[in-house]
Amino acid sequence: MSERVAPVSVIGLGPMGRAVAGAFLDAGHPTTVWNRTASRAEPLVAHGATAAATAADAVADGPLVVACLLDDDAVHAVLDPVPFGSEKTLVNLTSAAPEQARRRAAWARGRGIAYLDGAIMTPTPSIGRPSALVLYSGPEETYRAQGPALASLGGTATYLGEDPGRAAAFDVALLDIFWNSVGGLVHGLALARAEGISGGELAPYAESIFGLLPEMMTRFARQLDDGVHPGERSTIASASAGIEHIIATAETRGIDTGVLTASRSLIRRAEAAGHGADGLSRLASVLAEPAA
Amino acid sequence: MSERVAPVSVIGLGPMGRAVAGAFLDAGHPTTVWNRTASRAEPLVAHGATAAATAADAVADGPLVVACLLDDDAVHAVLDPVPFGSEKTLVNLTSAAPEQARRRAAWARGRGIAYLDGAIMTPTPSIGRPSALVLYSGPEETYRAQGPALASLGGTATYLGEDPGRAAAFDVALLDIFWNSVGGLVHGLALARAEGISGGELAPYAESIFGLLPEMMTRFARQLDDGVHPGERSTIASASAGIEHIIATAETRGIDTGVLTASRSLIRRAEAAGHGADGLSRLASVLAEPAA
Ligand SMILES: NC(=O)c1ccc[n+]([C@@H]2O[C@H](COP(=O)([O-])OP(=O)(O)OC[C@H]3O[C@@H](n4cnc5c(N)ncnc54)[C@H](OP(=O)(O)O)[C@@H]3O)[C@@H](O)[C@H]2O)c1
Ligand SMILES: NC(=O)c1ccc[n+]([C@@H]2O[C@H](COP(=O)([O-])OP(=O)(O)OC[C@H]3O[C@@H](n4cnc5c(N)ncnc54)[C@H](OP(=O)(O)O)[C@@H]3O)[C@@H](O)[C@H]2O)c1
Repeated sequence: MSERVAPVSVIGLGPMGRAVAGAFLDAGHPTTVWNRTASRAEPLVAHGATAAATAADAVADGPLVVACLLDDDAVHAVLDPVPFGSEKTLVNLTSAAPEQARRRAAWARGRGIAYLDGAIMTPTPSIGRPSALVLYSGPEETYRAQGPALASLGGTATYLGEDPGRAAAFDVALLDIFWNSVGGLVHGLALARAEGISGGELAPYAESIFGLLPEMMTRFARQLDDGVHPGERSTIASASAGIEHIIATAETRGIDTGVLTASRSLIRRAEAAGHGADGLSRLASVLAEPAA
Repeated sequence: MSERVAPVSVIGLGPMGRAVAGAFLDAGHPTTVWNRTASRAEPLVAHGATAAATAADAVADGPLVVACLLDDDAVHAVLDPVPFGSEKTLVNLTSAAPEQARRRAAWARGRGIAYLDGAIMTPTPSIGRPSALVLYSGPEETYRAQGPALASLGGTATYLGEDPGRAAAFDVALLDIFWNSVGGLVHGLALARAEGISGGELAPYAESIFGLLPEMMTRFARQLDDGVHPGERSTIASASAGIEHIIATAETRGIDTGVLTASRSLIRRAEAAGHGADGLSRLASVLAEPAA
């Protein structure tokens, strides 16, 4: 390689921070790590990382500083007191709301720190592998400069533009989809178990459910963009009846119904607004209307 | 074919009932149809179906009667007044709670009707095609006798045993997963739109989210069966922070947060019970614990 492999500092060694630091090490970057709970650095040090005693020491080591912390409050607690000096780039892989990302970018600008906001869309085992997906937004110049180092994270890096809140906006929307799916998955497992169906018995059938979602996403996205919500395949009224069976079964079995009753309220709101014969994509527009 | 192709009557011509009747017609069964709103039968009559004037007339036509209605209340309204006579089989493809399916089976037994409960797990375009998945439970003898006719629905027919509530139990658990995923999909689309991201821009990224679910389902199912919930990839505490970003963004943009705040309550309950460092599969057991 003709390019010098730049030193990188990774701040935050939760499951994702450890995967990120490991990927930089694997790609040959001299890697400094820091974590509030120092012991988490040990396995990385055994693989060649340098453990910094303080966050300020870690920042001093890398021209590129990568933060991967719990949330923006943790970024605030760890990085606000640290003097960055000049010529530093901060790539913040901590999940945040778009407004928080924009404020963090302004904070960095005020201190002369080049700043990119990043959102990791795939789980820890993907990092450094082809299946990783990381979204970035912020100054294009900064993205171009850091692209070679960030390629160490593997997979696909996607640049979404100058607005530093853009990666976070995609992140929250996709996390929203992810979280609700995972919430449904654990609720379905709990309900099945209460009906005497083990996880191992249920899981194979869930495949055909998950297999429906990509086509549905594409179709609903188009319907929302076009403002048409045809009910010829399945209607809000039919979903309304279906959710009653799930709630009734959960109640009979003593399984929490908080999320399902909130969903039912939304469906009933759509029916009350006269949308019962529409398709489910209509619910996306109902969600954005103020409740009566 | 050496076997006589038996007449079938389909009661209920919503989107799914129409697909079911169409599949019987395509497979060459003499098919009688009935629907409360009679006009829905017209396209099927154009394809060779016979429209019955009353539900009783439809039942009289078929030794095999297939019901596909909104819910068990609709089955009650339509079929309770109908005299079935002898030698009739009712295959009920109407979604219901397991207890409703068991009561409906008892009702049928009391009238000398051979009864199978069925649950269709795939959408209307799958019916009659290889991707269809239909679950059945009830007397094995009845399932064997009707298997050839039910093969007209296409794809995979799975017999789950004698308990007539078993197909419905799988159905509610899988519908639970499906519904929550779809609810998340429409919420994510609404949130993205409010952040200036169109459906068409967001949809391609959702693929990699959906791609994670099958492996997660299998892993969580095993963890729940084994009673171990490791947090080494991602924790409940991390999800707790993540859901705050989604809620904050939705609140800023005026998008309904009912389902998300219900999810947050569950996550907080898990954290309060000391499970913050566990993986998300732990939530399935928390759902089954009475709230404090
Ligand atoms: N894990 C995944 O699958 C995944 C996937 C995509 C994106 N992400 C995102 O990646 C980021 C990191 O996630 P993660 O899974 O590695 O773990 P996490 O549980 O979200 O964050 C843990 C890290 O934050 C630190 N931390 C928390 N509060 C702190 C504070 N007040 N001061 C200093 N440090 C603090 C922890 O330090 P201690 O060790 O001292 O507690 C640890 O380093 C999150 O924003 C997450 O949304 C994770
Ligand atoms: N559509 C799908 O993608 C899908 C997938 C899997 C399973 N399913 C299940 O299949 C079943 C049928 O679903 P669907 O999509 O065809 O439509 P649906 O909207 O669930 O049900 C509509 C049918 O029920 C009838 N109905 C409702 N209330 C009635 C009453 N009180 N008396 C008489 N008839 C009544 C309607 O008659 P009118 O036409 O007169 O209103 C129509 O025939 C449901 O249990 C559903 O959960 C559907």
